[in-house]
Amino acid sequence: MLLSQVASALDLTYSGNDIDISGMNTLDDADSSQLSFITEERYLTSLQQTKAAAVLVTQALAPSVPASTRALVCDDPALSMAYASALFAPPYVDVDDPAPVIGEGSVVDPRANLENGVTVGKGCTIMAGAYLGSNVSVGDGTVVLPNATIYRDCVIGKQCRIHGGTTIGADGFGYSHTQTGEHVKIYQNGNVIIEDDVEIGSNCSVDRAVFASTCIRRGTKIDNNVHIGHNCDIGEDSILVAQVGVGGSTSLGRNCVVSGQTAFTDHLEIAPFSTFTARSGVTKSITESGKIWSGYPLMEHRQWARLQSRLAKLAKERTHRG
Amino acid sequence: MLLSQVASALDLTYSGNDIDISGMNTLDDADSSQLSFITEERYLTSLQQTKAAAVLVTQALAPSVPASTRALVCDDPALSMAYASALFAPPYVDVDDPAPVIGEGSVVDPRANLENGVTVGKGCTIMAGAYLGSNVSVGDGTVVLPNATIYRDCVIGKQCRIHGGTTIGADGFGYSHTQTGEHVKIYQNGNVIIEDDVEIGSNCSVDRAVFASTCIRRGTKIDNNVHIGHNCDIGEDSILVAQVGVGGSTSLGRNCVVSGQTAFTDHLEIAPFSTFTARSGVTKSITESGKIWSGYPLMEHRQWARLQSRLAKLAKERTHRG
Amino acid sequence: MLLSQVASALDLTYSGNDIDISGMNTLDDADSSQLSFITEERYLTSLQQTKAAAVLVTQALAPSVPASTRALVCDDPALSMAYASALFAPPYVDVDDPAPVIGEGSVVDPRANLENGVTVGKGCTIMAGAYLGSNVSVGDGTVVLPNATIYRDCVIGKQCRIHGGTTIGADGFGYSHTQTGEHVKIYQNGNVIIEDDVEIGSNCSVDRAVFASTCIRRGTKIDNNVHIGHNCDIGEDSILVAQVGVGGSTSLGRNCVVSGQTAFTDHLEIAPFSTFTARSGVTKSITESGKIWSGYPLMEHRQWARLQSRLAKLAKERTHRG
Repeated sequence: MLLSQVASALDLTYSGNDIDISGMNTLDDADSSQLSFITEERYLTSLQQTKAAAVLVTQALAPSVPASTRALVCDDPALSMAYASALFAPPYVDVDDPAPVIGEGSVVDPRANLENGVTVGKGCTIMAGAYLGSNVSVGDGTVVLPNATIYRDCVIGKQCRIHGGTTIGADGFGYSHTQTGEHVKIYQNGNVIIEDDVEIGSNCSVDRAVFASTCIRRGTKIDNNVHIGHNCDIGEDSILVAQVGVGGSTSLGRNCVVSGQTAFTDHLEIAPFSTFTARSGVTKSITESGKIWSGYPLMEHRQWARLQSRLAKLAKERTHRG
Repeated sequence: MLLSQVASALDLTYSGNDIDISGMNTLDDADSSQLSFITEERYLTSLQQTKAAAVLVTQALAPSVPASTRALVCDDPALSMAYASALFAPPYVDVDDPAPVIGEGSVVDPRANLENGVTVGKGCTIMAGAYLGSNVSVGDGTVVLPNATIYRDCVIGKQCRIHGGTTIGADGFGYSHTQTGEHVKIYQNGNVIIEDDVEIGSNCSVDRAVFASTCIRRGTKIDNNVHIGHNCDIGEDSILVAQVGVGGSTSLGRNCVVSGQTAFTDHLEIAPFSTFTARSGVTKSITESGKIWSGYPLMEHRQWARLQSRLAKLAKERTHRG
Repeated sequence: MLLSQVASALDLTYSGNDIDISGMNTLDDADSSQLSFITEERYLTSLQQTKAAAVLVTQALAPSVPASTRALVCDDPALSMAYASALFAPPYVDVDDPAPVIGEGSVVDPRANLENGVTVGKGCTIMAGAYLGSNVSVGDGTVVLPNATIYRDCVIGKQCRIHGGTTIGADGFGYSHTQTGEHVKIYQNGNVIIEDDVEIGSNCSVDRAVFASTCIRRGTKIDNNVHIGHNCDIGEDSILVAQVGVGGSTSLGRNCVVSGQTAFTDHLEIAPFSTFTARSGVTKSITESGKIWSGYPLMEHRQWARLQSRLAKLAKERTHRG
């Protein structure tokens, strides 16, 4: 889609030289055929260094757009970015893709629902009611259990096991907001990549990325009813126990152990070998690896245990000291 | 079903004039063809003002039944009400309904499972493995993703998106209890109404109402693994982040923002423009709008932040002051 | 499979007399045809009393293996046990089983997905998109709603209701760990038994046992998005409200009431008639029945309420006492 067509679809004025736009991405990751956007002034350095073909930008920041990048001026780049994302959303199904390709020794139940463009490796089992969307690829030896759902373009590694009722690649939870409080969908045009030897329990949700990929790294094991937001990156050989929630764009290092009902807010970076006891609430990045954390607000486990024993004492006192 | 037949099915004696009963409802909402019930004396005013055709009532409260309403006397109205609810439960499927009606430009995957009586608007996408029960109606432009489940009689608005693994309209969690501790199902004979421009993520549960409707209002966006109990009313343009739970009959005003893992008990009324930080626990109604809340028990965010900083200090102290 | 073949598959040396091994089990429950294992020295008494055909055991503990049991010596019995479990995993589907047997008056939607070996009782309703795995049996009058998933070998009682999106019998979350931090799957070769009159809401996960059975006892009612780990035993007529999580091998006595978002760690024993208020966190067994519990760490509800009122006071104080 030409940049002039994007501008026209968004009701914006654009009079610079035209270019074919292939998609959207962040300032840091956009290539020279992609449209980007700057929603907050604190990304100014990224703006100045972007390789994007064009950027949605306010009049005030337009002078900072680099010479090789086109400025598409708008009042509210976050809102225009949401509207633009709809223009680049792929169809729900690519009906004209080639028929699914099934590897040697794989058993695909005829009652499984595969779209065209699917690739299934060797020795896989795809069970009744499982859904594999357009262009999904499934590595050798992987098992997709009944009524699991894998949205289009997701990549599942080798020797994985995706259990019943789990949904991989549904839209991340992203909206821009109008001045009157309505929420405008940011289309989630990325995907999910699940590396080898990953097991995901039942009724989990792993959202697709807004751009690029949500990643679950090799060897990680996820229990039931776990939520993983868009653009997360869960490190190798990690353990996520039931009902854990991970907010968007949070990354965990390798060999993290996350006990049940623990939650992470978005955009955190968690050091490898971090352990979280049950129902921890993590709102800040963790830079030092190998520690044990507890509580909400989060603190080191030893401190939390001490605090709880003091609170238990406070609960038992008949008369309050204060 | 005649009132005398209801009485007979419940092993109750009824000798008044007969009437055809069309269904059940609360004292306040019952019309002159419906059966109601009074389970606690505090609903006496509602009893005195009910328009119901008949009321399940104890001998003690029978004299307060208005003249136009029939008294169906029983020992335990809550229990009799549960047994009666089974009599009015519709079948799981209305096999004799007309074939589904699909609007212009809609793509209904032949592997989607539609019951008779379904109406799909224009420009919709209903994907493989999605289930639309008897009499479900889906508005123009709505997308139902693979393996989403919409039970009978539910109404989905225009431009909605219901993601994979989500269940709309399953039975609300309602039981009466015998004196020996068994639970008797209260059939959930209402439905769910989802207004326009609502998006619901994957693996969510939105329960159908016991009577009338559970409502999700226009423009509201719901993340993954969220639970909405029966008879809830979620206001316009609200945001419910992942793993939130809302107890039965709780209503939220418009533009509420509910962060992840927050929970509401049942029968609350939450003022519009209320914000809840992550993992809030809400057990009381909120009448003042526009505030930010945190913690469990709930308090204003500022207070909660102050409390947490004091507790963090307490956790760090080597010797306890007390 | 012969014990010598098991040894060879695990790269272990075994030179004793051979025996046909029928499966695996714990030291306490193994019969004289089963293979067991001892992972920690504290199970020494169980080892000395086991009836197992053979035991995976370290060289150090081998002398304690009883005379009637064969010692299969290995460096890391937990790891060898995980590898051995794969040898006894049944196939995902028993394709050669007889066609499903459907009882009188049952309605099985032709769009439901039943494997061979399934038995459905009388008067059941199995709806479109529901999955019943090999050898699943469903008792009289039970309803399986659309897109519910019941894995192979699970047993559902009479008059049960399993709602949409719920997964019964997915693999429990069990792994052994290598010295380099990788997780090796312990195949979950048990099943789930759901007794009569149980209702399970939407998007719940009830995991199959590693050995033997996960049990949900007669009359218990489970709300939405609840997680029940492997080998749990949930007592009769209990109530589990939405988003509750129960860790593996935890058992609840009869008539427990568990409010929303409450969680139990694994291997607990909870006395009958215990009540837990919302979001309790239970990490220790409860021996005294009939009490009301709250908070995390857990305490008696009265104490918790007192503590919270003191904390609320602390939150409101303008200047800190300390």
